[in-house]
Amino acid sequence: MGQLATLFEPDRIAVVGATDREGSVGRAITANLLADFEGDVVAVNPTKDEVLGLESHDSVTDVPDVDVAVVVVPPSIVLDAIREAGEAGVRDVVVITAGFGESGSEGASRERELRELAAEFDLNLVGPNSLGVMNTDLGMNATFGPESAQPGSISFMSQSGAFVTAVVDWANDRNLGFHNVVSLGNKAVLDESDFVAEWGDDPDTDVILGYLEDVVDGRAFVESAREVSRETPIVVVKSGRTEAGASAAASHTGAIAGSEAAYEAALDQAGVLRVETVQDLFDFGSILAGQPLPESDGVAIVTNAGGPGVMTTDAVGDSDLSLASFTDETVAAFQEALPDEANVYNPVDIIGDAPVERFEDALDVALADPNVGAAVVLACPTATLSFEALAESVVDLQAEYETPVAATLMGGSSTRAANDTLSSAGIPTYFDPARAVRSLDALREYRDISRREYAEPETFDVDREAAREILESAGRRDTNRLGVEAMGLLDAYGIPTPGSDIVDSRSDAVDAAERVGAGDEVVMKIVSPDILHKSDIGGVAVGVPPEEVADTYEDLVTRARNYQPDATILGVQVQEMLDMDAAVETIAGMNRDPQFGPLVLFGLGGIFVEVLEDTTVRVAPVSEPSAREMLDEIEAAPLLRGARGREPVDEAAVVEAIQRLSQLVTDFPAIVELDINPLVATPDGVRAVDVRLTIDQEEL
Amino acid sequence: MGQLATLFEPDRIAVVGATDREGSVGRAITANLLADFEGDVVAVNPTKDEVLGLESHDSVTDVPDVDVAVVVVPPSIVLDAIREAGEAGVRDVVVITAGFGESGSEGASRERELRELAAEFDLNLVGPNSLGVMNTDLGMNATFGPESAQPGSISFMSQSGAFVTAVVDWANDRNLGFHNVVSLGNKAVLDESDFVAEWGDDPDTDVILGYLEDVVDGRAFVESAREVSRETPIVVVKSGRTEAGASAAASHTGAIAGSEAAYEAALDQAGVLRVETVQDLFDFGSILAGQPLPESDGVAIVTNAGGPGVMTTDAVGDSDLSLASFTDETVAAFQEALPDEANVYNPVDIIGDAPVERFEDALDVALADPNVGAAVVLACPTATLSFEALAESVVDLQAEYETPVAATLMGGSSTRAANDTLSSAGIPTYFDPARAVRSLDALREYRDISRREYAEPETFDVDREAAREILESAGRRDTNRLGVEAMGLLDAYGIPTPGSDIVDSRSDAVDAAERVGAGDEVVMKIVSPDILHKSDIGGVAVGVPPEEVADTYEDLVTRARNYQPDATILGVQVQEMLDMDAAVETIAGMNRDPQFGPLVLFGLGGIFVEVLEDTTVRVAPVSEPSAREMLDEIEAAPLLRGARGREPVDEAAVVEAIQRLSQLVTDFPAIVELDINPLVATPDGVRAVDVRLTIDQEEL
Repeated sequence: MGQLATLFEPDRIAVVGATDREGSVGRAITANLLADFEGDVVAVNPTKDEVLGLESHDSVTDVPDVDVAVVVVPPSIVLDAIREAGEAGVRDVVVITAGFGESGSEGASRERELRELAAEFDLNLVGPNSLGVMNTDLGMNATFGPESAQPGSISFMSQSGAFVTAVVDWANDRNLGFHNVVSLGNKAVLDESDFVAEWGDDPDTDVILGYLEDVVDGRAFVESAREVSRETPIVVVKSGRTEAGASAAASHTGAIAGSEAAYEAALDQAGVLRVETVQDLFDFGSILAGQPLPESDGVAIVTNAGGPGVMTTDAVGDSDLSLASFTDETVAAFQEALPDEANVYNPVDIIGDAPVERFEDALDVALADPNVGAAVVLACPTATLSFEALAESVVDLQAEYETPVAATLMGGSSTRAANDTLSSAGIPTYFDPARAVRSLDALREYRDISRREYAEPETFDVDREAAREILESAGRRDTNRLGVEAMGLLDAYGIPTPGSDIVDSRSDAVDAAERVGAGDEVVMKIVSPDILHKSDIGGVAVGVPPEEVADTYEDLVTRARNYQPDATILGVQVQEMLDMDAAVETIAGMNRDPQFGPLVLFGLGGIFVEVLEDTTVRVAPVSEPSAREMLDEIEAAPLLRGARGREPVDEAAVVEAIQRLSQLVTDFPAIVELDINPLVATPDGVRAVDVRLTIDQEEL
Repeated sequence: MGQLATLFEPDRIAVVGATDREGSVGRAITANLLADFEGDVVAVNPTKDEVLGLESHDSVTDVPDVDVAVVVVPPSIVLDAIREAGEAGVRDVVVITAGFGESGSEGASRERELRELAAEFDLNLVGPNSLGVMNTDLGMNATFGPESAQPGSISFMSQSGAFVTAVVDWANDRNLGFHNVVSLGNKAVLDESDFVAEWGDDPDTDVILGYLEDVVDGRAFVESAREVSRETPIVVVKSGRTEAGASAAASHTGAIAGSEAAYEAALDQAGVLRVETVQDLFDFGSILAGQPLPESDGVAIVTNAGGPGVMTTDAVGDSDLSLASFTDETVAAFQEALPDEANVYNPVDIIGDAPVERFEDALDVALADPNVGAAVVLACPTATLSFEALAESVVDLQAEYETPVAATLMGGSSTRAANDTLSSAGIPTYFDPARAVRSLDALREYRDISRREYAEPETFDVDREAAREILESAGRRDTNRLGVEAMGLLDAYGIPTPGSDIVDSRSDAVDAAERVGAGDEVVMKIVSPDILHKSDIGGVAVGVPPEEVADTYEDLVTRARNYQPDATILGVQVQEMLDMDAAVETIAGMNRDPQFGPLVLFGLGGIFVEVLEDTTVRVAPVSEPSAREMLDEIEAAPLLRGARGREPVDEAAVVEAIQRLSQLVTDFPAIVELDINPLVATPDGVRAVDVRLTIDQEEL
């Protein structure tokens, strides 16, 4: 265990604000602790002599060796109570009391003081506005919820206290147990990152589940979770995913969450298995706690009914698992063991008259096949089958082979005892075969996470000073939006740009065209920080032959002046014209998230960015494998790789450009937003043809 | 009721093959019928005198007035038994016996005879290989399943008998009832279309549920379901959706299913609510049977817990419902009725200390709001709340307002009685709020289906004879693949093509270029039925100026000869060159599905067809609104409509081209496949630039 060992394994807990008043929170907590807690419970309440049979103390300072103080006094005296606890040497404090950050400006300022106090005494502080904490190992229920959790190997944190009471009630009804449970409350001090780190070190926690509405410190969470998720699965519902949900969450907790795209990318990079529903949270949590990871992706289906076998196969088709293809030996063994009418290929249909023994034989053969990484046992009610006996066989065979198994007993009351047998042995069992397969697929997903190799981001040799100079000169011109005049930033960071020059006269334009175009056609663009969509106003001329360069110069400047007379016009860019025949326009960009910092984006460029939104995002810094994955993830990836006989683009150059962009935006917090659009990818490399960025003067 | 009235409401049923042998199917059916059936049960078995207390007859011909014969004799004597039944005047027959189409060639030929016999006697025949049928209204369980269904308003058909036993067992455990249940078996005679039509006419069936592995007659099903689904919701799991699932289904039933794309389009066009999982099938079936349809899409959420309220809001965000925005009056009424700390906007958080009365007040206010089309009541366990009392209030208020409501009681055993109260009143209740919202969304989806207006497909004035001539001339040339030489087909059906000519000499090429290009550049393409990807071999020249036409002609022919010396070269096509600046390449195509006939496809064209697969499909004939929907459905629709300041293309011309293509492929069954790629859409209309088709000589 880590720094929170004492919080979860105290010898003595003081309830500050303990009372016997009926219906009060202070009574509920005291009673819950008295029920089963193996350690000492101490009541602190100066207005009482005795609380539920305990002597009541005036102050926590009157009691020696208190490990954890659970604070339930009114908000106005919470700070005093905590100071006393700190002075008494208590390091672990759970603040149940509400009326802090979640309730107006007075509460918010009280929460700031609370945080300062915690820093002063170096407190591990849960809450405020928390339901409390549980450790089933010690029978410790330091919450005011109506029920205690049953023991288990899942540790669960929730940003909603009500959800904790709901889950414990529901889980007790399903024999689903927990090791630790924490209601995070307002997360003034301890937050999700702390508990992830703690449980990552805890041998009694096999799976970490979380319900989160925001993440306090995005970077800390990603680092902590990435480390922990190698060994311990982390499954999270992050709510406020949708626009409506995000505004509901903001009004509920007062938290300003970062963008959904940032959470999506960050949780993935952190190795968190993100789910969208409560059902998936506990389905996935249960199977991860109960079953081993599959060594391969092939699923064997053993069924006594053809139709449900087809549905199960569809569910496998929907997942990232596959239908196992059996070895010849396996097929022969099935032929030996099963009646003629049986289907000895996958799904293995052992037919409606199958007794338990036939299920056993078939499952035994299937699990022995090296191509089988997981199995689904599916049974419909028949006259010849005992669900209870089947459940016992499945439990034994699963234990023997140590291959993950999920069950689908398709019935109602007749399956109840069998389902209990299976779930007690950690084998998930559902009526709907799709849920069984989804759960197995969660095992696969976590297996892949646990095998991930995290590469350090590469540090390229760049001209950081030149980049700084460009950003600062923009600052001096008192603008926060830059366009092609900032192409030098990309040059400084080694992101290739086309040969180009910015000129401010007809004759310079002709010279520049001669230089960058070498006699061929060129591209010319108006340069103005005030004109964003240059092509929409005719501010871009493509394929300008040498003899038309001078006139085109005049023409572009005139158009820009007509369009926006007060626009600052910095000149005209004369640019090398790329051979677009084998080229693909992509976009590489960045914006800055309040929780997670710079997000790097890559996608199909040009008009398709807006219409098809074929893009993917990572929290910076982006490593080489991660940049490569970004390329893999976009729908248009085959276009880059030479679909329909096209020549593939230089993938390595694209990947390197993404990494260099990542380095640039990580180095300069002043860059708030940046788009390279298009980043033209060709078989010979990439060229950043246009750039737009927004900078924050304050950060310069 | 329709033509199957007697099948479901017989006065007298004969069990042909009735027996008292323990564990036999014949005994199970006889016993099931004897248990509760209100009519007469007659045993037929020449080897017995008495079966389970019934006199046993030698033949069904010995018994007068038999309405339904349930046949469970061995396969070899099934046909004799059915002939006797037919001769005795029985018109409704349920064949339980297996060993027909599902088992080898002997079985298949027996099934053909069965079908002939049914035609001879005009029998309504269920099966063979069926579990049987139920009608709970009459206590009639003519199946060999272990349990009888409870009464209800859902009628259920299943292509898997085992799935029927599973569902009945499971549903009985949840108080979910059925009106009729049919195990379809091999569907030799009666199939899904017949039962859809029957239940559409049945006032006791509120919802039709189906588990199907294939659809026997695609067109008949679409027509029947389209009619029925206006009044009665049809929810179907069509399995074999995935490649793996389809091959599992084929090996299970021997059925050759059409393509998944065809099912997807056909079920949608038929107004069927297609679901992928067993869970959705019964979640959606239950709410459709129990709740009214929402008049608007706004959902009110009333909750005693903030966090779960946010999850519910996310689920609304995932659906096609929306979070209701309350009127000022509603907000004022909430402010009046609720404590200060409550959130009076949606989701309405009435806070953790809410008693039932506060839930009642809040729900009353919410349901009275004209913007609220549906409501979710969400409750976590608290000391102040009685779930049972809450359930009763919710039932009353739902009945008063006749607005659909779904409940989320987030707990375990403490919610059991309340859940029973709710579900008995037809109000669905789940632990996971996402399921509650999904169910409400199914109501919305069905509401939209029930309001659909089906337009008749337009019939354009076309030159059918010219089209026939082109197809027949291809037949005479003994080829089944046609290319640009078939552009005349499109001309005949009024699908615009670019000005074009096919020439076979240098000089004709020059003349043609002068004619179609009017002095501008032209496009030139090799014409050969043997060369499919012309541009890959350099068989296409774009932007050929008049002076290069003659040389390009030679060049194209030489390339084609070099590439494939034995290719038939029909000449070179000289084509008007389109201004592609404001153009979007689309594809319009067709292939023929064994179950559903011609499928019309539309999508983004060019290289994107293969890479992005941005296409959509309809079963022909395609009406005008349907063609317009196709355009709406593709991801790239905004490109056609003028994204980023582009000029929008002529949408009406695209829509008309799709309809004309639909008419062409409907008129000529000989066209097996056809692709117009690209169909270039511009602000001024469309042009079919290239066409490829495959024809079936037999159908000419």
